[in-house]
Amino acid sequence: MAVNAAGRDIPSSIPGYGEVRPYQGAFARVPEGFRAGGRLKAVNGSCRDKRLKDIEAAIVASGLKSGMTVSFHHHLRNGDYVVNRVMDACAALGIRDLTLFPTALFGVHKKLIDHIKSGVIRRIMGSVNGPIGQLVSEGGMDAPVVLRSHGGRPRAVAAGDVHIDVAFVAAPCADRYGNLSGAEGPGACGSLGYTFTDAQYADCVVAVTDHLRPYPIAPISIPQYLVDYVVEVDSIGDPAGIVSGTTRVTRDPLRLLISQYASRLIEASPYFVDGISFQTGAGGIPLAVTAFMKEAMKKRGIKGSFGLGGITGYFVDLLKEGLVEKLMDVQSFDLEAVKSIATNPNHIEISADWYANPWNGGAAVNMLDVVILGATELDRNFHANVNTEADGALLHGIGGHQDTAAGAKLTIIAQPLLRGRIPCVVDKVHSVTTPGEVVDAVVTEYGVTLNPRRTDLLEACQAAGNVPLVSVDELVDRAHRMAGPMDPVAQEERIVGVVEWRDGTVIDVVRQLKQKA
Amino acid sequence: MAVNAAGRDIPSSIPGYGEVRPYQGAFARVPEGFRAGGRLKAVNGSCRDKRLKDIEAAIVASGLKSGMTVSFHHHLRNGDYVVNRVMDACAALGIRDLTLFPTALFGVHKKLIDHIKSGVIRRIMGSVNGPIGQLVSEGGMDAPVVLRSHGGRPRAVAAGDVHIDVAFVAAPCADRYGNLSGAEGPGACGSLGYTFTDAQYADCVVAVTDHLRPYPIAPISIPQYLVDYVVEVDSIGDPAGIVSGTTRVTRDPLRLLISQYASRLIEASPYFVDGISFQTGAGGIPLAVTAFMKEAMKKRGIKGSFGLGGITGYFVDLLKEGLVEKLMDVQSFDLEAVKSIATNPNHIEISADWYANPWNGGAAVNMLDVVILGATELDRNFHANVNTEADGALLHGIGGHQDTAAGAKLTIIAQPLLRGRIPCVVDKVHSVTTPGEVVDAVVTEYGVTLNPRRTDLLEACQAAGNVPLVSVDELVDRAHRMAGPMDPVAQEERIVGVVEWRDGTVIDVVRQLKQKA
Repeated sequence: MAVNAAGRDIPSSIPGYGEVRPYQGAFARVPEGFRAGGRLKAVNGSCRDKRLKDIEAAIVASGLKSGMTVSFHHHLRNGDYVVNRVMDACAALGIRDLTLFPTALFGVHKKLIDHIKSGVIRRIMGSVNGPIGQLVSEGGMDAPVVLRSHGGRPRAVAAGDVHIDVAFVAAPCADRYGNLSGAEGPGACGSLGYTFTDAQYADCVVAVTDHLRPYPIAPISIPQYLVDYVVEVDSIGDPAGIVSGTTRVTRDPLRLLISQYASRLIEASPYFVDGISFQTGAGGIPLAVTAFMKEAMKKRGIKGSFGLGGITGYFVDLLKEGLVEKLMDVQSFDLEAVKSIATNPNHIEISADWYANPWNGGAAVNMLDVVILGATELDRNFHANVNTEADGALLHGIGGHQDTAAGAKLTIIAQPLLRGRIPCVVDKVHSVTTPGEVVDAVVTEYGVTLNPRRTDLLEACQAAGNVPLVSVDELVDRAHRMAGPMDPVAQEERIVGVVEWRDGTVIDVVRQLKQKA
Repeated sequence: MAVNAAGRDIPSSIPGYGEVRPYQGAFARVPEGFRAGGRLKAVNGSCRDKRLKDIEAAIVASGLKSGMTVSFHHHLRNGDYVVNRVMDACAALGIRDLTLFPTALFGVHKKLIDHIKSGVIRRIMGSVNGPIGQLVSEGGMDAPVVLRSHGGRPRAVAAGDVHIDVAFVAAPCADRYGNLSGAEGPGACGSLGYTFTDAQYADCVVAVTDHLRPYPIAPISIPQYLVDYVVEVDSIGDPAGIVSGTTRVTRDPLRLLISQYASRLIEASPYFVDGISFQTGAGGIPLAVTAFMKEAMKKRGIKGSFGLGGITGYFVDLLKEGLVEKLMDVQSFDLEAVKSIATNPNHIEISADWYANPWNGGAAVNMLDVVILGATELDRNFHANVNTEADGALLHGIGGHQDTAAGAKLTIIAQPLLRGRIPCVVDKVHSVTTPGEVVDAVVTEYGVTLNPRRTDLLEACQAAGNVPLVSVDELVDRAHRMAGPMDPVAQEERIVGVVEWRDGTVIDVVRQLKQKA
């Protein structure tokens, strides 16, 4: 055991994970050597059609064997049919001990629990939202889940930490030679940002589509020369689960107040000038912050340069109204975003590598001024936890949390002080996702709490005069008083989750929950 | 010495090139292992502007040292200012013994001869059109020039045969964080197809631009995360040399007759159906074939799927008129093509890797039905030579000749029987670029000459009834009679050029010309 730079006790080696490289600081680790490369193959014109008759045929053709690593992406979110279908086929073919390397799993993937129990799936590296996270937390898997951020995942692949044997790409639109797009089709999802790394580095790439169009399609997200096989299925997913009809600004007065404080902080900051860039995601508070900022931008005549990240209709409106010049989209959250990316040349599809990889020539997060994030917990050190819930269960992925926090000039975590009776600002978070050194401010209904190292922001807020300030100690004390004493999470020694910082070091671990008596 | 599969005597090793892997057949070589990868680097948000003050500063920052390999692309063609400028700077900085790895050099690069003579440039791997080719042919360089096709070049890089230390990308449009595009600016050149491989695999990428726009630009060809430095200069090139105002259909009656015969062959072939795809390039005869085909397509109500390769205004018209659904563009030849690719989503920019690399998951040439090519010579074995002129001088690159011939179902070489008094169809070509096994037909003013292995095409032509047929032996004999006896090329033993087949094997060599008495 050794204490890492986030103050966490981490063993030097973890069964099922291997040697631990402890977190050394947000920007401390520097890579050596060269990027990995996918398998070389010679393909000539003797076959002009990469279609195979079904997923089973593609699995056989891909050479997928027991013990290998298979990857998936989550643009189909809770509507996805492809992961379950492929895993069922692997099970039927007698393939076992697979490492699953999805970008994220959702409630719809609950079915995989059977394949975990039967040994078809041996390890998971990726976000486990919901039921599989619960299973893992209760000790239901032998190997710990490895959590990586949207930027940490392509970094791990490019650096050779993870080798993908077969990548399965759910493609809303495809042609027979493997050009892929998310722009059209019944399962249209917009950006295919998370799939680029998998298509580029996997030994074999299988596209699964329900919307085959004549060669060549346009636009093309993933080009033909990275794709080996194409399989047509009846449906890749349920459109209702793929895109939400609308994402909504919060109407809760408490959350609106938080949003207003966050907006005032941004307006007071030196970043609220022409060319401002921001990421706000799809939550109720961030969307409300966007709405407040929009009014402020109009009032002050300020125009933004770009909106980043998971894109919603609110951002599309900003683009249409000329309040931002461009959108850079790694994941399109709603129908408006899906429509916009297919038709507006200023709505740019970016890969996760482009978005957030700390080990390339410069990711988009590096150009970000302001990001509004959430967290399940935040502590006196400004460490943020987004992975575990108050009961210690590992229910959420990292997403772009670490990456945007590390890249943005102003990283704001906006959330109520308590959720129900549970304090969100505490002495020490149960699990660290993002270290305090890259968090600049917490905004609650009690005002703005600045990281003490941001004396520049303190001065800016004081000068603005309309930003209520509250210290982190006051906030913790208040939360304690309101919530009363909390029982510590009852946990076993056994590690069930490894939280990597975006550079591949381990920032924290998650331990198995003690069974309730 | 050993005879390779194209019947050429090739030494087993060549000074300045190394071990020779002899050509084994068009599709014989199968790769093993993995693609190379560029250097890993950690870049965070502490620098949000990759601009350096000049090319000298970028060379220093790039770590470029004597003996390294630097790459360039030729989208600026004979208007390019960047190659000369960078080489002047290298010379001024005392850097020597460089390997130059351009996609192609032109007349405008004649200045480099000084740097060759002074030892700044020690080797060239790339097409040497014109004066540098002449210098090389006369023995002016120590190491032989290595010629690769548009597909062979990315293959060589991906397979690790060539490692690029620093890539210089002339960018008609760029932003301060290195997103690059050819779509706009005074040096707009349309597609940046040849630059993708260099940007992806080089250790360091330097963009040179004369049109800096706010971050982020759109559209983006080369993304920021592959680019290390950006340098602003007054001008990257002379627009008049970058794009031709118009490319022209031939008006010469003899060439029109050839074009008409070629068109009849295509119409008679089984490929002249809905969905036909073709590449015709920018020469006078191919453009005339396009014009004839266009009429025939209209008359027969046929619609094509895509036009490929270097794109001209003639292809843009086909797209606009709905006679092809898509254009796949690795190089935009004229102003109409440059305009179209910037605005029409069905005009798709493709990389050279996508276009033609034989060692990826499937290049665009593999989907090609018909290609019309030229050649300086063709022989009884249907071997084509595009590299050397009748006097044996190495004046031309391979371009996509090998790749499209290998990929297309119908490869036509269309040319007059004689150029001046020089026969173009001979007993044995001076140098083999493309082997007869991937050439299907030669079309001259005397009719269509089919490769005997294409009995299917013979039957189709006979059925059509309007295609004059002439055997290759008749053609050679006729050319002999017309031209009279030719002096053989007087050459030394020393090898000055190595012609690689697209898979990295050596199909032929070019020897130094004997000095005229």
